[in-house]
Amino acid sequence: MARNWKEIAAEKKQQRDAIVPKEWLLTNLPPPETLNVIDFPDKSGLLTERDIEITNSEVGLLLEKLAKGTWTAVEATNAFSKRAIVAHQLVNCLTEVFIDRALARATELDDHLKKTGKVVGPLHGLPISLKDQISIKGLESTMGYVSWIGQYAEKNSVLVDILEAAGAVLYVKTNIPQTLMWPETFNHIFGRTSNPYNRSLTSGGSSGGEGALIALRGSPLGVGSDIGGSIRIPAAFNSLYGLRPSYGRVPYAGCVNSLEGLASILSVLGPLCRSIDGIKSFIKAVVGQEPWLKDPMAVRKPWSENEYSLVGHGQGQNLCFAILWDDGVTKPHPPIIRVLGETQQALLAAGHKVIDWIPLKHEEIYRTGGKIWTAGAAEDFRVVAAISGEPVIGTMEVVSESTDTAPNDTPVFRPMPGGLSAYELWQEQKRRQGLREEYLDHWNATKDLTGTGRPVDAIISPCAPFVAPPHGKNSNASYTMVWNVLDYTALVVPVGFVNPTQDGKRAVEEFFNEQDRANYDLYDPETFKDAPISIQVVGRTLEEEAVIRLGEIVDQALKAQNK
Amino acid sequence: MARNWKEIAAEKKQQRDAIVPKEWLLTNLPPPETLNVIDFPDKSGLLTERDIEITNSEVGLLLEKLAKGTWTAVEATNAFSKRAIVAHQLVNCLTEVFIDRALARATELDDHLKKTGKVVGPLHGLPISLKDQISIKGLESTMGYVSWIGQYAEKNSVLVDILEAAGAVLYVKTNIPQTLMWPETFNHIFGRTSNPYNRSLTSGGSSGGEGALIALRGSPLGVGSDIGGSIRIPAAFNSLYGLRPSYGRVPYAGCVNSLEGLASILSVLGPLCRSIDGIKSFIKAVVGQEPWLKDPMAVRKPWSENEYSLVGHGQGQNLCFAILWDDGVTKPHPPIIRVLGETQQALLAAGHKVIDWIPLKHEEIYRTGGKIWTAGAAEDFRVVAAISGEPVIGTMEVVSESTDTAPNDTPVFRPMPGGLSAYELWQEQKRRQGLREEYLDHWNATKDLTGTGRPVDAIISPCAPFVAPPHGKNSNASYTMVWNVLDYTALVVPVGFVNPTQDGKRAVEEFFNEQDRANYDLYDPETFKDAPISIQVVGRTLEEEAVIRLGEIVDQALKAQNK
Repeated sequence: MARNWKEIAAEKKQQRDAIVPKEWLLTNLPPPETLNVIDFPDKSGLLTERDIEITNSEVGLLLEKLAKGTWTAVEATNAFSKRAIVAHQLVNCLTEVFIDRALARATELDDHLKKTGKVVGPLHGLPISLKDQISIKGLESTMGYVSWIGQYAEKNSVLVDILEAAGAVLYVKTNIPQTLMWPETFNHIFGRTSNPYNRSLTSGGSSGGEGALIALRGSPLGVGSDIGGSIRIPAAFNSLYGLRPSYGRVPYAGCVNSLEGLASILSVLGPLCRSIDGIKSFIKAVVGQEPWLKDPMAVRKPWSENEYSLVGHGQGQNLCFAILWDDGVTKPHPPIIRVLGETQQALLAAGHKVIDWIPLKHEEIYRTGGKIWTAGAAEDFRVVAAISGEPVIGTMEVVSESTDTAPNDTPVFRPMPGGLSAYELWQEQKRRQGLREEYLDHWNATKDLTGTGRPVDAIISPCAPFVAPPHGKNSNASYTMVWNVLDYTALVVPVGFVNPTQDGKRAVEEFFNEQDRANYDLYDPETFKDAPISIQVVGRTLEEEAVIRLGEIVDQALKAQNK
Repeated sequence: MARNWKEIAAEKKQQRDAIVPKEWLLTNLPPPETLNVIDFPDKSGLLTERDIEITNSEVGLLLEKLAKGTWTAVEATNAFSKRAIVAHQLVNCLTEVFIDRALARATELDDHLKKTGKVVGPLHGLPISLKDQISIKGLESTMGYVSWIGQYAEKNSVLVDILEAAGAVLYVKTNIPQTLMWPETFNHIFGRTSNPYNRSLTSGGSSGGEGALIALRGSPLGVGSDIGGSIRIPAAFNSLYGLRPSYGRVPYAGCVNSLEGLASILSVLGPLCRSIDGIKSFIKAVVGQEPWLKDPMAVRKPWSENEYSLVGHGQGQNLCFAILWDDGVTKPHPPIIRVLGETQQALLAAGHKVIDWIPLKHEEIYRTGGKIWTAGAAEDFRVVAAISGEPVIGTMEVVSESTDTAPNDTPVFRPMPGGLSAYELWQEQKRRQGLREEYLDHWNATKDLTGTGRPVDAIISPCAPFVAPPHGKNSNASYTMVWNVLDYTALVVPVGFVNPTQDGKRAVEEFFNEQDRANYDLYDPETFKDAPISIQVVGRTLEEEAVIRLGEIVDQALKAQNK
């Protein structure tokens, strides 16, 4: 007789745990009541001084030292692997662990460098963590579905081939929510990933394992995916840089996914990292390998140094940014309004112009995007879950650690019952096409407002109407999703942390709607203590080079301000 | 009481006819029995010697003379307008005629050149014809639907703005089939467009008006659209060059269309022309205006002189082409096999390599593409036709000139009854995605067969299993559609004409299937007398620059061979 899905899930989890080197299991872990564990790894006693030095280095420095052989690939792999296991014991962020495979590859890289004096590629020796859905030959990509346990990938996804050819060392895969269509991270196999800055808060999702792991410096750089905010929400909630590229810029072929065959609002892969130089190194390395020759959906567009130099943006002098203070639907919490203001001041101080961004039909964009996602989602989830008999998860609340369904909890991004016909889906896609055209015209029309002779160079937007909320409370992905529906390039830049003194609750008398009132009610400075605060720098479609450079400019302005 | 759709259609047709200058109506037209009318315009007596010189010039020479002011824009507009009206009287190819508007614009262009000594843009003074669906402010784009009569465009489509900014003169729009989803050209308003090389044959479709008009030199260059072959079939059937670019290379925003909201197999706009230099001029001019700043679906990819120089193809030396002799489903007729052989010889003589292209799963590609198109097509057609009460056309046979439906005629590209659910559509799109990946791998694997160190540089493919067939007999668009499903760039190159002596029927003993046998039975050299024969040069996705250059190489090799 077929085994129960709970038994299968438990066995898989046990297998994952068993693979962790015993000597890396800690007995001095902080108790569950300790919410902020971000500084624990350095003090854990497991890491050597050199491990600590390596794992606290940003990507730019790591690549430099690895290329010189100052640090070997084996040393880096070992250091990040150890630290990843520490992180995992704090926030439960890993799904697949394959350190042996990684060390073997690192050894090859070290040999190559020693023999030839040359790096294998631009990411030589850099450990990179991957969201669970990114397939590696011989490993599972369960994606949190019990149904997919035991399916070992027959080949690498295209991105894995490209990263390995660039010299990267892959060593762990990270946790996600079942179906991927949640902005938090919990599933029946691996359980929940918490936020290392405050473990009572969510790590975000769907790339929540990445967010938590990289924040704890268990990985210098990770790859997530984003269909409605799944890179940017974990980046924002964990004080990371995170890039959502446009459709097709980073090859997706060979990954497993939800909503497969959805062809209008595409999930994209992109990097999360603690420094913006890592974002740039990743995109340059990937695009430099001509992914369009390996993935039919990858866009034939080489890295453009011209676009990075902001040729279309006055060479980066006297830029004009526009701030989206709110979307007219849900007003962001005080910490977010505070950092938007700080960003405004920083950019003005750096000699740039700043105007307000007037949101155009955001509510209609959310509704249309939601209908497109959910046109066939319920059936998609049902078909996959039915294989094992596991329930489709209906809430991210901490009901119990084997949460089933909670039918009365239906945030906007959950599947609508029934679904649409293909013709009805086409009508939503047509509406969405019209919205994209209107939004482009809207952007172009800012040419008359900027005083630069150009339309606005980039939008500065909240990442969500809140910083990382308590588990189960992340019911609004609108501020990220809007840029997916429009296919705009969006980069998360971390700005600060919630400070209950600075970020007190303020009286508000008018609300846009009930949702806005509920969001207001959610805020309490103590609840969100220590949570990271971030912004998005948003550019046009396929404008990755310019958005990275514009992000650097915003980041430097903020850092200069805070000196 | 609402008027009958036939009355409304008749009135619209009458309006179109009334706009034609009376002095351009000919009384010496050849009788209907005269099938080949391609040489008539020069002998019509309406055109002056200068008109004849201008209209017989190719785009490169036209642009040169127009830029120098040797020929004025008004002269060129007048010459092509006259000739377009002659062509129309021969094959019924026009839908909208707006010569006054064109002459006003041409006068502006002439004034500008006279005053400044400079051209307005790279297409200065060039008359360009447009497929009916391409909207121009103030004009109708009925697209052959009686339902859409009386809808005057509120603004230009993006391409019209771009062409006018480049200096082009727009003067006529051209005929299409109702729904656009036919490879022939007939609708209830404007009737049928015939092939000027043999009026008993179809001009092809859906850009059939363009094909016939340009063949008769009533336009030097026209814009068509292509979702399954709609640029390439009329190009091939009328001895023209015709480029199907990849999705998003040429801006589509602002055009009317069928199957709106279909987001996976996209219709694209592209040029038809009697010379390959016109194809290049058009694409360079359009891309040069950064269409991505005006159309959200346009790909941010400037014209690449590097790619045109075949940097990725050994600088164009010692290329390897692969010939698709047949798709394993329907064997092409003798004239097509003949010109494939001639192409092979010409390329070998020019010093290139030629191997066979092994088709991969073409039947599955056709089936999947067909299911995606038709997932919501029946409903789409029904909803539009219901507005006027006109029937959805079910055959292109010459039943009568007000052909209604013929339910027993159901070629593959007609809507399937019922349609699909969004989830079912996603499954087809997922299958299609897999086929794209397999085909890319298949292409890459030719690296081991070419002897050049590279995979095959381009595929040489038939355009259809037949040359232009008799009206109503074009039941197979597979040889073009396959490249739409895969989103490969494909350029039609004309090679010759059917010669009953050379292209006799040959005995065949085995057939792939019943469809193949029916196609064999269709062939009779006399039926297809004088019909043009063409090939496709097929490159990878978004490889327009390279495909144009590869097309030039093939074209030059063929011309050298035929000297």
